Amino acid sequence: MTDKMNSKHRDRMKRQKAVVDAGIEKATEERGIVIVLTGNGKGKSSSGFGMVARALGHGMKVAVVQFIKGSFSTGEEAFFRRFPGEVEYHVMGEGFTWETQDKSRDIATARKAWELVLGFLQDAGIDLILLDELNIVTKLGYLPIEEVIEALKTRPPMQHVIITGRGADKTLIDYADTVTEMRDIKHAYRAGIKAQKGVEL
Amino acid sequence: MTDKMNSKHRDRMKRQKAVVDAGIEKATEERGIVIVLTGNGKGKSSSGFGMVARALGHGMKVAVVQFIKGSFSTGEEAFFRRFPGEVEYHVMGEGFTWETQDKSRDIATARKAWELVLGFLQDAGIDLILLDELNIVTKLGYLPIEEVIEALKTRPPMQHVIITGRGADKTLIDYADTVTEMRDIKHAYRAGIKAQKGVEL
Repeated sequence: MTDKMNSKHRDRMKRQKAVVDAGIEKATEERGIVIVLTGNGKGKSSSGFGMVARALGHGMKVAVVQFIKGSFSTGEEAFFRRFPGEVEYHVMGEGFTWETQDKSRDIATARKAWELVLGFLQDAGIDLILLDELNIVTKLGYLPIEEVIEALKTRPPMQHVIITGRGADKTLIDYADTVTEMRDIKHAYRAGIKAQKGVEL
Repeated sequence: MTDKMNSKHRDRMKRQKAVVDAGIEKATEERGIVIVLTGNGKGKSSSGFGMVARALGHGMKVAVVQFIKGSFSTGEEAFFRRFPGEVEYHVMGEGFTWETQDKSRDIATARKAWELVLGFLQDAGIDLILLDELNIVTKLGYLPIEEVIEALKTRPPMQHVIITGRGADKTLIDYADTVTEMRDIKHAYRAGIKAQKGVEL
């Protein structure tokens, strides 16, 4: 590469750095945020679990509540249960709802899980809470979204909450600080490949 | 809830279960897959790290190569370095490219990181490789995408590879098994909230 090209690149990058730095300077507020990961693409739950790993790397205390459990044991559960002093790990529900086919029981299960979450949402000793697949539960009408929002509003100010699952409620999207929609561009499953350990399970 | 409602619900769920089960039956192939996480939304890298956690939960061996490193230390690095026997963790690059403003040096750094990746891509003892922010590197033209695809094609058949970063190359999207686009619906940053430890860092 010529010196001239390198110098042009340097100028462009300098301008980009100035824009980025100005943005960083404007973002000064520090507080707990609510993150929603929704959409039909792969990566919602795994993204939540990646943030759990990040938080643990900073010595933070974490609570995980999985609202829906498949019929197989999952890698994330096996892994994060290795840190009982750092992660409170709870799995509620007994298989996806179309596996149980008993709505009354599913509602009772969701309610029981939510009572547990309420305890974490009032505990300033918990820095980050992952509510995995909660969106499915509110979408099915098993928990009123208003109750969820109310509890989020009164949580400790520095506490982060991550909520995953397709079909996030509009009220939740409006309330949340950061929302990502995972769009399914293609999926190995549709090409006949089984869900693979370590990436899907 | 009345028995009739419960019974209607049960019928609907039974039909849904039949569809899901038929899909599962059709997906029979088992092999390593290539997953691409792209788009401008939050959650690409964290999703990759969540899959790393999953893989570790299954006792798999993992390699992580971060192609771009911010100027701060990250939670995911601090966390996954706790498992040296299970995760090979490498961070290449010195800050985002607009921080270094030296294209020749960035290309040399990318090339050096890629040589390391090639070693993992020929090692059947590594079950999952996370190439964090590789898309940025190919987008900037620091590594030819053809070289990347060629190495992916000749890797061990059961090895999974996850590639993150905005602006994934079309050739890579065509080659990959699973592709998710993370769409930025809203971000706390734009509301003036600093990047927060445990969720962004």
